[in-house]
Amino acid sequence: MRRLGLLVGLLITVTACGGAPQAQETTPRPTWAMAIHGGAGTIPRDIDPEVRDAYVAGMTKALHIGADKLAAGSTAVDAVEAVIVELEDNPLFNAGRGAVFTSDGRHELDAAIMDGRTRACGAVTGVTTVRHPILLARTLMERFPPVFMAGAGAEAIAAEAGLEQVPNTFFDTPKRRQQLDEFLKRRAATKGGGTVGAVAMDSAGNLAAATSTGGLTGKLPGRIGDSPVIGAGTFADNASCAVSGTGTGEQYIRHTVASSIAALVREGGMPLEAAAHHVIDDVLDPGDGGVIAVGHDGSVAMVFSTTGMYRGAADSSGRFEVKIWE
Amino acid sequence: MRRLGLLVGLLITVTACGGAPQAQETTPRPTWAMAIHGGAGTIPRDIDPEVRDAYVAGMTKALHIGADKLAAGSTAVDAVEAVIVELEDNPLFNAGRGAVFTSDGRHELDAAIMDGRTRACGAVTGVTTVRHPILLARTLMERFPPVFMAGAGAEAIAAEAGLEQVPNTFFDTPKRRQQLDEFLKRRAATKGGGTVGAVAMDSAGNLAAATSTGGLTGKLPGRIGDSPVIGAGTFADNASCAVSGTGTGEQYIRHTVASSIAALVREGGMPLEAAAHHVIDDVLDPGDGGVIAVGHDGSVAMVFSTTGMYRGAADSSGRFEVKIWE
Repeated sequence: MRRLGLLVGLLITVTACGGAPQAQETTPRPTWAMAIHGGAGTIPRDIDPEVRDAYVAGMTKALHIGADKLAAGSTAVDAVEAVIVELEDNPLFNAGRGAVFTSDGRHELDAAIMDGRTRACGAVTGVTTVRHPILLARTLMERFPPVFMAGAGAEAIAAEAGLEQVPNTFFDTPKRRQQLDEFLKRRAATKGGGTVGAVAMDSAGNLAAATSTGGLTGKLPGRIGDSPVIGAGTFADNASCAVSGTGTGEQYIRHTVASSIAALVREGGMPLEAAAHHVIDDVLDPGDGGVIAVGHDGSVAMVFSTTGMYRGAADSSGRFEVKIWE
Repeated sequence: MRRLGLLVGLLITVTACGGAPQAQETTPRPTWAMAIHGGAGTIPRDIDPEVRDAYVAGMTKALHIGADKLAAGSTAVDAVEAVIVELEDNPLFNAGRGAVFTSDGRHELDAAIMDGRTRACGAVTGVTTVRHPILLARTLMERFPPVFMAGAGAEAIAAEAGLEQVPNTFFDTPKRRQQLDEFLKRRAATKGGGTVGAVAMDSAGNLAAATSTGGLTGKLPGRIGDSPVIGAGTFADNASCAVSGTGTGEQYIRHTVASSIAALVREGGMPLEAAAHHVIDDVLDPGDGGVIAVGHDGSVAMVFSTTGMYRGAADSSGRFEVKIWE
């Protein structure tokens, strides 16, 4: 950390506060930008091509929804919410329908959303009957306070707000059932996979981040991961960046991953990409996961230490890409 | 934030990374140090002298317990845990016995503990039957993962670990019942008051932080405050500082108060006291609350924007003080 401090000192002299990497200074700053993820993990390169194409199609559809909204002048908060709603409905991903099972064969969903303009935020954990947990997080953000609610208390607010409620079995999918069966045979925790997230800068320059997940296959009921913990799996602050993480939640919590990246940008003057690499590569352990981030200058970072991360990025310059490996 | 970045840049040139304020360079670095709090809020200066003396006696007893442990070579983690156990048992404070009531007349307790040496942490929320929530947080920290658990799932671990369980009415006190009655008449949220916290540097130079609370009088069941959110109300990292906060939890969550102070010290090279003042005075709103913090050099900061904060500090140089106002 001392070494990092010195490095940061040097970077300050080179790039000035909050500066973009010098290489980007000649590129026009995008008027809007977005990145999304569908989870990081051990994604074999010889994955069934049909499955691969389904993931790519799912990510592409979600990214189009967000990018179209931003291009039409939507706020960053509305754009990231729309992406997450789409991915929560896609059974391929571990959020909403398609969420993993807890050790007792149910689903407990976590989600968070944050507005970088005001740092307003909303987060929920242990949600079992709300079709779109991200909409409940948004409801808390708008109603502040409280901003962070668990279980039945959170669901009471969903009912009051008129959000769609479903039986817990609505979230069931055969693939996740099979993963639970395998987990129960091995009694070993599996790494997270399929958490979904989105970050955006809108045309007013405001940032937002959102994350939604079912957590870990076979997790203990009541376990809270990093996704709903502001500063761990989700964070947004106009002065620095918006971040959504996916990986070993406990590691993201203890290293306050999302807010640490923001602090390196804001306090340390580090370029966004370097800050994300520092936290993923040097602070976390290899294989812990990844992050997507968008900076206050519209720069995008997508960094992971797993074999792959379902991810996509788009901006006003015409960039539109969806990737798994590389 | 830009202005702060420039200020931080200047500080780096003057004090070097993570440096203590220059005025302290002549003072010998203490071999151990501790600070504790019993909540920040509107504490009238004309408080009944008997009540004042009871608070001072409670803080003094808890501080002695922690200081004696540190002087005897205990770890920072053991010292902060022992302080919190004592304060959870003291019905004057809003943690354990004496915790405030939720809107439905029960108690839901939150707690967290963090080891700055490893950044291992444990946190619980919505605990209703565990006499010492801090011991359950410690259990999670030792058993990692999971590190953050809610409600019945957390209590199942308490039962398995053999922690003392009590009926929820064990936490009742007449004063808190009266505060709930007043809340229900007014239907207005009250500010937090009486949350307890402790931070320490032990003789091996390791830091730790711990916080425990009943939250807000009349809080919605399921509401999670900042105390159990690592980086918001509780944080410890040997490279910077250990922090415990008390105040308007939602504000502490969105501004990631504890980890922001640590980031200003670690990435920004700001002295601990200045970092705490920046976050409490410039980032939070007036009256939001306070923090206690101990730096990696054994320096102590106790900063608040309320009329008072029950607090105390002790170190190996013989310092031992308990204060409410000033």
